[in-house]
Amino acid sequence: MKPMKSKETVHRPLSTVRQKIVALAGGVGGAKLAHGLAQILAPEDLTIIVNTGDDFEHLGLYISPDLDTVCYTLAGLANPDTGWGRVDETWNAISNIEKLGGPGWFHLGDQDLATHIERTRRLKEGQCLSEITRDFCKAWGIHHTVIPMSDNPVRTIVETDEGDLAFQEYFVHRRCEPRVKGFRFDGVNEAEPAPGAREAIQSADAIVICPSNPWVSINPILSVLQFSILQRPAPFQGHPLSIIAISPIIGGQAVKGPAAKMYRELGIEPSALAVAKQYQGLVTHFVMDKIDSQLEPEVKSLNMQTLVAGTLMKTPDDRRQLAEDVLNFIGTEQ
Amino acid sequence: MKPMKSKETVHRPLSTVRQKIVALAGGVGGAKLAHGLAQILAPEDLTIIVNTGDDFEHLGLYISPDLDTVCYTLAGLANPDTGWGRVDETWNAISNIEKLGGPGWFHLGDQDLATHIERTRRLKEGQCLSEITRDFCKAWGIHHTVIPMSDNPVRTIVETDEGDLAFQEYFVHRRCEPRVKGFRFDGVNEAEPAPGAREAIQSADAIVICPSNPWVSINPILSVLQFSILQRPAPFQGHPLSIIAISPIIGGQAVKGPAAKMYRELGIEPSALAVAKQYQGLVTHFVMDKIDSQLEPEVKSLNMQTLVAGTLMKTPDDRRQLAEDVLNFIGTEQ
Repeated sequence: MKPMKSKETVHRPLSTVRQKIVALAGGVGGAKLAHGLAQILAPEDLTIIVNTGDDFEHLGLYISPDLDTVCYTLAGLANPDTGWGRVDETWNAISNIEKLGGPGWFHLGDQDLATHIERTRRLKEGQCLSEITRDFCKAWGIHHTVIPMSDNPVRTIVETDEGDLAFQEYFVHRRCEPRVKGFRFDGVNEAEPAPGAREAIQSADAIVICPSNPWVSINPILSVLQFSILQRPAPFQGHPLSIIAISPIIGGQAVKGPAAKMYRELGIEPSALAVAKQYQGLVTHFVMDKIDSQLEPEVKSLNMQTLVAGTLMKTPDDRRQLAEDVLNFIGTEQ
Repeated sequence: MKPMKSKETVHRPLSTVRQKIVALAGGVGGAKLAHGLAQILAPEDLTIIVNTGDDFEHLGLYISPDLDTVCYTLAGLANPDTGWGRVDETWNAISNIEKLGGPGWFHLGDQDLATHIERTRRLKEGQCLSEITRDFCKAWGIHHTVIPMSDNPVRTIVETDEGDLAFQEYFVHRRCEPRVKGFRFDGVNEAEPAPGAREAIQSADAIVICPSNPWVSINPILSVLQFSILQRPAPFQGHPLSIIAISPIIGGQAVKGPAAKMYRELGIEPSALAVAKQYQGLVTHFVMDKIDSQLEPEVKSLNMQTLVAGTLMKTPDDRRQLAEDVLNFIGTEQ
């Protein structure tokens, strides 16, 4: 072995950088960045806390869309085309349910159905969601820690011009058509962070807010966790807790989903700047796409450090590259 | 039109014979004969009352094995090889449930799963089993009437040397290994025949007891219906109610399932004669296989009319032929 150069000058490959990261993730965008982080960080250094505000009961089954998207993505089981569900999926159950006159609006593949059936069975037996998630991750060969934000029910309600809609009713059944007036998270005041979430945050070097929808993916998690984030002494173990957000809005548009439409309907021009403003006071580091570089000065003025990077994750390499950029960005001071 | 010959001498093709039939059916054997009868009788002339003593909850789903076997068979959707489940089936859900550590002992195909999921959903919404069955039959293109024996829960319990076992636990999970000591049908005293069952019997010319397991397929139905059968005035509308049983035991063996084993464990030599003795007092006509013709005199001595026929239904033609033989046999007097 060659003698190591001094710490100051050596280029350390990322794999040897021990950063303890907590990632907050919703569905597709969150899952992709979580996957990128998982390719770089050791299992014990990455905890992914996932939104469960979208969870709902359908066909008698407990469905946790974001949790499944994150797990399927980490396990390499995700459908790369749809952003939800399993790859190499079949649709024999749902098509037969439709033939029998049952509801077919929520597309459930046969493999995906197994997740919901077995999870529902275990919940009825008294296991909690975080325990089940841990078991499922083990079965799927996921070594990093995935935690639902809470074992208690928190339900995202979209307040629209057509009345209050449960999230999946708004999102899937109504295809995000009703005009958004606001959001609330039923049960959030009674919800405790799931076991391990608080501890992971307390020993984290940084929290990465993934490029998920701030309104309905990240806000529910923050609402449940906020107390424990604020509780953490900063600076802690000699360095402050960095909180890095990656904008899910690129060039004024959401990569996927209704985030941009939501901003507009709430009277806000959708942009990376709008996202940064939403996170102002919480976030220390902000990552925006190259296409939005002209917004950098304004984001800086919100008292955030900024990074302009390629944030559109089209390939697995893109995920890893963005994760690498984010990890390099952590701890930097201008 | 030619003038009709006198009733006594004309050979009427079966399709013009209006016999109102109620068939009592369990699983495979019952489903096959019901299918044969359905090929001959007009929809309004055949009502199939199906055992629900085998029904159970599994994976949070309400499963009604005999009802499904009968319906799938009538609809041409049944798996011809297994005797249960659907043809051209896939197994993606159950194999993934097993990967997650869930119970895989009850084989549920993806198409079959749709039946259980949609039925469970509707039951939770407050629909009753007979209503759901009627809707499903319509969706599957079944024109004859299929009625579960009761909308109330009746559960067959197999009393064994290893204790009391719920039927599917005994039948599928334990592969009929425990030694049978007896049977009971929990809930039978409180169970009402499902809507339409009583009326069908009251207007029937004959009741056909299909070649299903007398202990656990036919007895539960008889227990629920007995009152209404006995209530029917005989002779009724000028002719007596015929009750025809077809032996499920051929050459001392059950075509499928544990019937023969059950007879032996209860100290009875399994044979068509043993079946006839079980039905003595109720049944007026008894059909046994050609291989058992030597038993005919003894069965006759039980005060039953007898028919020796080919009862092994290997092909759809066999089903139709046996149905034809059974219908021709009805009303005959020696």
